Amino acid sequence: MTAVVVVIFTVRQGQLSVLLIERSAEPFKGCWALPGGLLRDDETLQAAAVRKLADETGVADVYLEQLYTFDRPPEGQARVAVAYFALVDIRRARLRPDLEWRPAWQPVRSLPRLGFGNETIIAYAEQRLRNKLEYTNVAYSLLPERFTLTDLQQVYEAILGERIDKRNFRRRMVGLGIVRETGSLQKSGAHRPAMLYEFTSREPMVL
Amino acid sequence: MTAVVVVIFTVRQGQLSVLLIERSAEPFKGCWALPGGLLRDDETLQAAAVRKLADETGVADVYLEQLYTFDRPPEGQARVAVAYFALVDIRRARLRPDLEWRPAWQPVRSLPRLGFGNETIIAYAEQRLRNKLEYTNVAYSLLPERFTLTDLQQVYEAILGERIDKRNFRRRMVGLGIVRETGSLQKSGAHRPAMLYEFTSREPMVL
Repeated sequence: MTAVVVVIFTVRQGQLSVLLIERSAEPFKGCWALPGGLLRDDETLQAAAVRKLADETGVADVYLEQLYTFDRPPEGQARVAVAYFALVDIRRARLRPDLEWRPAWQPVRSLPRLGFGNETIIAYAEQRLRNKLEYTNVAYSLLPERFTLTDLQQVYEAILGERIDKRNFRRRMVGLGIVRETGSLQKSGAHRPAMLYEFTSREPMVL
Repeated sequence: MTAVVVVIFTVRQGQLSVLLIERSAEPFKGCWALPGGLLRDDETLQAAAVRKLADETGVADVYLEQLYTFDRPPEGQARVAVAYFALVDIRRARLRPDLEWRPAWQPVRSLPRLGFGNETIIAYAEQRLRNKLEYTNVAYSLLPERFTLTDLQQVYEAILGERIDKRNFRRRMVGLGIVRETGSLQKSGAHRPAMLYEFTSREPMVL
């Protein structure tokens, strides 16, 4: 049998975080694990990934791609896990706790004890995300329609795990054509209003 | 059940070619298909891919990476096919025909009728290979230890499907540090002897 698992990333409180579920049954009872399940007979891999993503977060129209296929430890029913990764804006996600399991966002830099060797899958996904940040516009899927360049920079910093020089970052983002000014300003109380930006495309795009 | 298939590319007679097997049994009897089989209980995905590669070509120490996992048509036993792709120097490959099946190199630009929707997998692998050619040294796996820049250019042209300007190509290859002169000349009868080159690394390397 084949498992499909989804690494769902978000940026929450300035930290790259992944959606995990606390397991209430064996195997790996008490550990946390990536959302996933067995591939059904009547669905494609992509459909299974979209279903899992929608079940767990309430959204489906976000960045989602197949990551890699991993061997599965012998404790489970499936021999392999086809992993997908998705990027979700924290403002849109609606977790659905239920009696059987408890979903939660966990910071990638301080993960709880995981089942099924999921550390490997999350590390692989994080590396892919970092690479994609360099040559694609995938960050669109972590931000709302309109945002300030400070918001955008915080997303990049959370993923890269390092501070970025503000001036270079702004020049690069606008220069690459990833984002553009909307002409509207953000109202922000006492602060000087900041320009709101938008992605030039909210579809995946290679720069 | 999970199938593992391998897209084994070579450059043969100036053409990018893929190893295919003519099927002597249903499903898809009389069609050609990628070498592959069911994942065994006691092996990893990577081990299954190496086994298939060695079975079919007699070599194992070549470039091999997981490509993507595809849905499988309902005719077969497996629900999904985990596809790998490999690059083999035609001079090293030893095909092993046998009573049950007939392996052959087929040019990617004129494939025979294929089973299991393998066209999709081959097209995906070809695209990945073209991309990798841009930013890695993967071509090493298609060439012997020592080769002329003309040999190297023919490999690139076969993969890209277009002629490349000789002077720019040479400057780029040497400039990128992919290859270096060996100091030895190729003896080639009536022609002016050509410099032999070697890859600076015969391990996968991102440029």
